[in-house]
Amino acid sequence: MPWIRVDLSEGRSVEQKQKTAQAITDALVEFCNCSPESVSIIFNDVSSDDWAFGGTLLSQRAKKG
Amino acid sequence: MPWIRVDLSEGRSVEQKQKTAQAITDALVEFCNCSPESVSIIFNDVSSDDWAFGGTLLSQRAKKG
Amino acid sequence: MPWIRVDLSEGRSVEQKQKTAQAITDALVEFCNCSPESVSIIFNDVSSDDWAFGGTLLSQRAKKG
Amino acid sequence: MPWIRVDLSEGRSVEQKQKTAQAITDALVEFCNCSPESVSIIFNDVSSDDWAFGGTLLSQRAKKG
Amino acid sequence: MPWIRVDLSEGRSVEQKQKTAQAITDALVEFCNCSPESVSIIFNDVSSDDWAFGGTLLSQRAKKG
Amino acid sequence: MPWIRVDLSEGRSVEQKQKTAQAITDALVEFCNCSPESVSIIFNDVSSDDWAFGGTLLSQRAKKG
Repeated sequence: MPWIRVDLSEGRSVEQKQKTAQAITDALVEFCNCSPESVSIIFNDVSSDDWAFGGTLLSQRAKKG
Repeated sequence: MPWIRVDLSEGRSVEQKQKTAQAITDALVEFCNCSPESVSIIFNDVSSDDWAFGGTLLSQRAKKG
Repeated sequence: MPWIRVDLSEGRSVEQKQKTAQAITDALVEFCNCSPESVSIIFNDVSSDDWAFGGTLLSQRAKKG
Repeated sequence: MPWIRVDLSEGRSVEQKQKTAQAITDALVEFCNCSPESVSIIFNDVSSDDWAFGGTLLSQRAKKG
Repeated sequence: MPWIRVDLSEGRSVEQKQKTAQAITDALVEFCNCSPESVSIIFNDVSSDDWAFGGTLLSQRAKKG
Repeated sequence: MPWIRVDLSEGRSVEQKQKTAQAITDALVEFCNCSPESVSIIFNDVSSDDWAFGGTLLSQRAKKG
């Protein structure tokens, strides 16, 4: 039943997402009594132009170095 | 006033989304006393590389199938 | 498979939500080729102290009115 | 940096959430090269009156059962 | 038109939220050419039992501190 | 600590997002006692084919207009 949304800066491979999805699912099964089939996970890739910390977009932070 | 977010696996046409948006809006108007103009809906297409069920990404499940 | 999140100002009854959930599910089945069991919907009640339009919280707007 | 939102039917204890948070964080560190401190997770408890599957709220499904 | 969701640890007053909502709305109007009435904002109070950083819930971090 | 998600119709420049991110961060610092580094913001561009108001997608509304 649980929905898990993972907002992540872009660049992870399908293999990385697959391993992460499996591990998150295992955690929900082991610690929250969920059945594996009930766990659904969405990954959302976020561009460095769309994510800000401390008032600065990641893409601008890189420029500032 | 209501916000409705629809995360949907990618591939639906604009026409399908238009009909769905109209039907969801009608439901909020009829059952929740919302005015039609107050109902806003966002569709979010999710790639099969970004959605996992039972610990497996949809794109990987297709390969196993 | 679709996830639908409905942010709604608080005060709707369980019966209103039930009818809305059924109608939204029917829309996804009819227009997006989803199976009924795959459609999951979360309602999120939002207090008038937590929702702003035009820069004013709903609870403050009521006072001004 | 990643944000993880976990919508879960209500009833899990703080201890269950703590173990789940640790395991999800470990997964992001191991498979996505995130630093532990960068991983933030929000749990959102969802009432059985606010979650529908197959067009029926969980609370109504229990009654039918 | 923009939707802004603010997940915030609980404890802010209505007055704090009102000022924040006004300032966010002003920012969208000034920098993104939105009309004030089109800007809607939802605040979501998050309990310290429901928010984890670095694998530890805020409520548990306080105990360790 | 706060997470802010901004769903915005597509077309804003990086410069517009940067200024908006700075202003939102300043608001959270001034009115909610957050440290600047704790404020994270995600912008999500929404296509006019994916956003409906009053039951009509923005892209269809333009055609009707």
